Amino acid sequence: MSVSTSAQAASAAELAPLRQQIDAIDSQLVELLARRAQVTAEVGRVKQQYALPLYVPEREAALIKARRDQALQAGVSPELVEDVLRRIMRESYSTQEAGFVCCKEGGGKVVVVGGAGALGQRFVSLFRRSGYQVAVLEAADWPHAASLVQDASLVLMAVPIHLTAELIAKLPTLPGDCVLADITSIKSQPLAAMLAKHNGPVLGLHPMFGPDVSNIVKQVVVLCHGRNESGYQWLISQLRVWGAVLCEKTAAQHDELMQLIQAMRHFSSLVYGVHLAEEGADLQQLLQLSSPIYRLELAMVGRLFAQNAELYADIMLSSAQVTGLLQRYQHRFNQLSHLLAAKDKAGLMAEFAKGQHYFGELAGEFLQESRRLLQKAADERS
Amino acid sequence: MSVSTSAQAASAAELAPLRQQIDAIDSQLVELLARRAQVTAEVGRVKQQYALPLYVPEREAALIKARRDQALQAGVSPELVEDVLRRIMRESYSTQEAGFVCCKEGGGKVVVVGGAGALGQRFVSLFRRSGYQVAVLEAADWPHAASLVQDASLVLMAVPIHLTAELIAKLPTLPGDCVLADITSIKSQPLAAMLAKHNGPVLGLHPMFGPDVSNIVKQVVVLCHGRNESGYQWLISQLRVWGAVLCEKTAAQHDELMQLIQAMRHFSSLVYGVHLAEEGADLQQLLQLSSPIYRLELAMVGRLFAQNAELYADIMLSSAQVTGLLQRYQHRFNQLSHLLAAKDKAGLMAEFAKGQHYFGELAGEFLQESRRLLQKAADERS
Repeated sequence: MSVSTSAQAASAAELAPLRQQIDAIDSQLVELLARRAQVTAEVGRVKQQYALPLYVPEREAALIKARRDQALQAGVSPELVEDVLRRIMRESYSTQEAGFVCCKEGGGKVVVVGGAGALGQRFVSLFRRSGYQVAVLEAADWPHAASLVQDASLVLMAVPIHLTAELIAKLPTLPGDCVLADITSIKSQPLAAMLAKHNGPVLGLHPMFGPDVSNIVKQVVVLCHGRNESGYQWLISQLRVWGAVLCEKTAAQHDELMQLIQAMRHFSSLVYGVHLAEEGADLQQLLQLSSPIYRLELAMVGRLFAQNAELYADIMLSSAQVTGLLQRYQHRFNQLSHLLAAKDKAGLMAEFAKGQHYFGELAGEFLQESRRLLQKAADERS
Repeated sequence: MSVSTSAQAASAAELAPLRQQIDAIDSQLVELLARRAQVTAEVGRVKQQYALPLYVPEREAALIKARRDQALQAGVSPELVEDVLRRIMRESYSTQEAGFVCCKEGGGKVVVVGGAGALGQRFVSLFRRSGYQVAVLEAADWPHAASLVQDASLVLMAVPIHLTAELIAKLPTLPGDCVLADITSIKSQPLAAMLAKHNGPVLGLHPMFGPDVSNIVKQVVVLCHGRNESGYQWLISQLRVWGAVLCEKTAAQHDELMQLIQAMRHFSSLVYGVHLAEEGADLQQLLQLSSPIYRLELAMVGRLFAQNAELYADIMLSSAQVTGLLQRYQHRFNQLSHLLAAKDKAGLMAEFAKGQHYFGELAGEFLQESRRLLQKAADERS
């Protein structure tokens, strides 16, 4: 139905003042955000002064509950209010991270081996902003390694997986109370290498995020105790001050879980991406037809290929157990392929039921969670 | 570093007034959102009256640009302001969808075959809220089908894939100017069946979303022309008024692309879910160790299993071409498995390079896009 010219003029005349009102409200909104940012910056300064954690779950929950209640009274969607507040709070966490309290009495020197790498740089920055003296040890610096580490409180290994064990072995002797730690994506092998190298405090860490996160508030860091926990307690406190969520595992537990969380998942995305590439599928057409859910499916595959090929190959190859797990995965893939090729609908539905039983109520929760996220993805489109 | 009791008291005393200020600002924010909702509801009423589309990309872009500019001046993150505004606008689209203008002169009757199904219900609701008379034709209603359709302007097939062709054939003769359309996830077979059944206007539609979307603003609907386009022009206008983004394809193009967008993707998630299930992987442990990116990876797999097993089996089985495509997929999976089992790092990296070359710059864009989304996912954690 086409709209006539006079109707267009009439609708424009009615919409114009309403749009002006919206613009005025939005302008007040920006002013409010500016004022709020000033106050939260002040909160950040107080928290730094008293070494308080940036992220306080109880305060966050209470703040949100109060505004949800108010929203209900005012006839506004509580979901909208909560989403807006969480987004605003994320911003305040990232602006509050300008500086952190130092959790080591009297400060200390941190040597980051591989500190020029992507993730290494993030830790260099975090330690510097927390008042530590930070030195970076890169390939060219090994001749001076002994003098670099001689007064170190922490030597942190932030090097590619395939070099970790070798470079740990290459380290000069460390001061007895120096902490030796690593942030490799695998834990058994580096932890064993560190324990063999150093008699002092040893700690394995796996930050479960890439260098692309803008701050580490609420990010998970896996922690595998090595030796002399009291000697690295300050480092654990430091991670907490940065806002990390710490999760203790043995190195063996960690590595087994990572095979499923990382290696098999990366493998699955790799195969799918190669499949699309070799089919010569027209990406622009795929995108044109993709609603948010399929765009996200495609993005989760495509994002892999913007990352470091060697790192991902190393993660996939990192475990001795990968062979058995992979054989079983391949076997299942082939079994399900046969069902599909044989057009065995009942067989496919029986396999589907295994997944339903396994995920249980979590499947529905994931559906809700991805739905909320997809609504946000839809917001992105302009 | 522990905080002493006196320091705790001092920090509490300093934080309390700041937190009161934040609460006061947040309270004003909720009031502002309530006022904005009142104005946008009024905008919705004007748009309905003049049959204007809810979603006007130019107005949205101009509104956001003005506030981003203001944010820069005020020292607030323009990204924050844009995210908050997009979230608010999403809410206003969903509240504005209470009613729509009717795009068929003088209204009309719509019969939704399968209108009690999940997606069928959504269309029943959309047509009702647009002033159409809507009748639902479910299994028990077939004896009265002839009288139900005798004065219909549109018969919309919204039934499971495996029943579509059969139920189209079973339809009584439709009025000559009645539109026959379907919303099946495949297009060639239903379109052929509709053209064989009815001599009047025929249109194939594929809404690229599930029944879980809260409104269809910005959602993609694929449109496959059948016959007599002028006869269903009103239906296309109606989809636009609802805010859908229309995308024209031939049925063959659609089906080929859907094999990659839907069938192979669902297959991939199915295999991964079954793999996790049969490994007996501890989901709680996997989640405990999952940062937002891995939680999202797992959620994208798990969400499949909250959905209808038969629908997904039908989508996977829907195309005659699936066999060849699947064989090639299986072959690639096995090839990459062999590389991994042989610990052939160079081989894996060469495969990775294929994906890098294929996705090109889009890989980086997907990484950015998923990063923004993951930051939002992190907001969800409380």
